[in-house]
Amino acid sequence: MINILFAALTERWEQYETPLRAALEATGLAYCLGTDLPAEEVDYIIYAPNSTVQDFSIFPNLKAVLNLWAGVEAVVNNPTLTVPLARMVDEHGLTQGMVEWVTGHVMRHHLGMDAHINNPDRIWDDTPPPLSKDRPVTILGLGVLGQACAKALTNLGFPVTGWSRSAKDILGIRALHGDDGLTQALRDAQILVLLLPNTSATTNIMNAERLALLAPGAFLVNPGRGPLIDDDALLAALDSGQIGHATLDVFRVEPLPQDHAFWTHPRVTVTPHIASCTRPDTAAHAIADNIARSEAGAPMLHLVDRDAGY
Amino acid sequence: MINILFAALTERWEQYETPLRAALEATGLAYCLGTDLPAEEVDYIIYAPNSTVQDFSIFPNLKAVLNLWAGVEAVVNNPTLTVPLARMVDEHGLTQGMVEWVTGHVMRHHLGMDAHINNPDRIWDDTPPPLSKDRPVTILGLGVLGQACAKALTNLGFPVTGWSRSAKDILGIRALHGDDGLTQALRDAQILVLLLPNTSATTNIMNAERLALLAPGAFLVNPGRGPLIDDDALLAALDSGQIGHATLDVFRVEPLPQDHAFWTHPRVTVTPHIASCTRPDTAAHAIADNIARSEAGAPMLHLVDRDAGY
Repeated sequence: MINILFAALTERWEQYETPLRAALEATGLAYCLGTDLPAEEVDYIIYAPNSTVQDFSIFPNLKAVLNLWAGVEAVVNNPTLTVPLARMVDEHGLTQGMVEWVTGHVMRHHLGMDAHINNPDRIWDDTPPPLSKDRPVTILGLGVLGQACAKALTNLGFPVTGWSRSAKDILGIRALHGDDGLTQALRDAQILVLLLPNTSATTNIMNAERLALLAPGAFLVNPGRGPLIDDDALLAALDSGQIGHATLDVFRVEPLPQDHAFWTHPRVTVTPHIASCTRPDTAAHAIADNIARSEAGAPMLHLVDRDAGY
Repeated sequence: MINILFAALTERWEQYETPLRAALEATGLAYCLGTDLPAEEVDYIIYAPNSTVQDFSIFPNLKAVLNLWAGVEAVVNNPTLTVPLARMVDEHGLTQGMVEWVTGHVMRHHLGMDAHINNPDRIWDDTPPPLSKDRPVTILGLGVLGQACAKALTNLGFPVTGWSRSAKDILGIRALHGDDGLTQALRDAQILVLLLPNTSATTNIMNAERLALLAPGAFLVNPGRGPLIDDDALLAALDSGQIGHATLDVFRVEPLPQDHAFWTHPRVTVTPHIASCTRPDTAAHAIADNIARSEAGAPMLHLVDRDAGY
């Protein structure tokens, strides 16, 4: 019997108890899971850094701590924590969630749905949208997320161009790279999806000059990182009509400040950083599987390097 | 050189000229295409029944008429038309358009987009939607369109149940049939897509009793036929919350009358019969390919049976 303490806010327990029990059952381990176990009997702690547990020295038999969050800044330097610490990496939930969000918002813009969702004048205009084969989509960033989105959009018939800093060869899409490739990838794109990491080389990559390369009235979809876009250049391009609509899931400051122009611009949709996030169901499986690895004597996944801090 | 007369309203010529020329070029035929050719030289007529051409006897060398419309009621009984008449069957455009519209609106409801598109209070609620694997979708009707939509939604991770009157075995979905199967298919479905034909057996198939089988707050998506739904039962289910939102593309009367309750109901989205329609680009290929068949001595496709009238 292994004893697993859940140490996080009460609302997390409400979200996680059922999926965690299901995921632990699936491992076949004999376990006891609870929010209040005798400290000396605790083997593992499923942990959120904002829980009341801050002194790990009271758990003499602790084998490992499994962080519920991707971020570990608030626990990695706790001097009482001397056992292995694992980060949350919910690969399935993160990738699948991104594919769904990107596919949904690309289809929304492609089909011109907003004109039907908001149609107070009851206008019946039965001009059909073009088919997906006539709607070029460009994705900047061809990591795990960019490639998964490219595949989903290709399956739906869109001609997809992908761009990454270094050359990649990916089946079914036009994959470009480097500075010349970026210009080529942006030129005439009708829908642009940003899935680049945030680095010094990508900050403000979508500036006025590059926004102007897109097809007039293009749709910009950003589930990547806030700083990829020069916000003022985007607002100017929206006002001029060069960008038809921007759907943004990530921002330089989150939550997006109430007085930010994006909230009220008629051609901006704000989504609250939900494109790709840890979900209790898939996260529970990641935790249960990692505990099972530890019990089987296998190395745990996603262990934090205390010196590097991540 | 074959001479092809385009006989339809001016706005159709504007839509069709470029795609028709491209499609004809692709066949390799030497052709002349125009809206005003000497009658005695015309080989083929691309025809809309509301054009000014009503007397076909003035074309002594006419080989065939290719209708721009799927419907031929207004031309099939014209006594001056003695050459073969082909209906428009734009299979690629019809099926692909339906897949795109259904995928888009299913994703919209799945992701809860409307709350972000219309968010005047600037609410930042970062609770993520469930993943598609936890969103059961049911499709009534497993013809060409239903199967194509089932495949697209399965690719995106949705568990899809399909229903048809007679048994079908389709890879990757739960396929049910018959009356018992219908009850089972509807029970607990969170998104329902209607793609049945309109027959005496399907009229009002979605009545109050069957709407009540769905999961509370389910989304109803109807790109099939207007009479599949009992409109009053739907409005009652929307008001009670049993149906969370209905997105409707087809109606008993089209265009939907300005005073119909669907236009103003806050949980109904009206789209103007655009889910699946003939598009100039794909239709042009169907026409050009049919002319090429005729010139090669092969039987033309989709010829109308004058006696049957379709």
